Amino acid sequence: MVKLKAQVVVMLKPVVNDPQGLTVRAGLHRLGFEEVEEVRVGKFIEITVTAADEAEGRRQVSEMCRKLLANHVIEDVRFQVEAVADREQAGAARTE
Amino acid sequence: MVKLKAQVVVMLKPVVNDPQGLTVRAGLHRLGFEEVEEVRVGKFIEITVTAADEAEGRRQVSEMCRKLLANHVIEDVRFQVEAVADREQAGAARTE
Repeated sequence: MVKLKAQVVVMLKPVVNDPQGLTVRAGLHRLGFEEVEEVRVGKFIEITVTAADEAEGRRQVSEMCRKLLANHVIEDVRFQVEAVADREQAGAARTE
Repeated sequence: MVKLKAQVVVMLKPVVNDPQGLTVRAGLHRLGFEEVEEVRVGKFIEITVTAADEAEGRRQVSEMCRKLLANHVIEDVRFQVEAVADREQAGAARTE
């Protein structure tokens, strides 16, 4: 068994209107960031999961996306899966 | 001037409770994905911006994060910036 961390990105399809993105863009313009052309806001979902191997984990995450995480009518989903060292705290995020 | 796409990830800090993540985890467990250990839900923000060069774009996005995109008391933010070919549709997302 291997512990994996999946990073799932769920975005509205390009043809779907994104009011949240428009609002953020308007806010950035108001703050003086006139060079901002487009903003799209989506979800970033980090999942820590145990699986037999990486391929099996990938298959599971793909199924989670299909069944729960995304609405495939209006959203696109992409993800990557990587092994987590056990001592590494799975929820830790790097800051910038 | 160069057109850039920034991908910004905003996550609640690991010490901050994430009710949305807990809800998603409960949903996944109910669907039979018992192997799911932890779920954290954050935001993924794609910004298309024009800047003098990539370093300047990176500086701008960093300032956007500080001023609007993240609440640094409870959220961590990380981003990457890459040049966009003009003919490529900036908002396009790959699907998986």
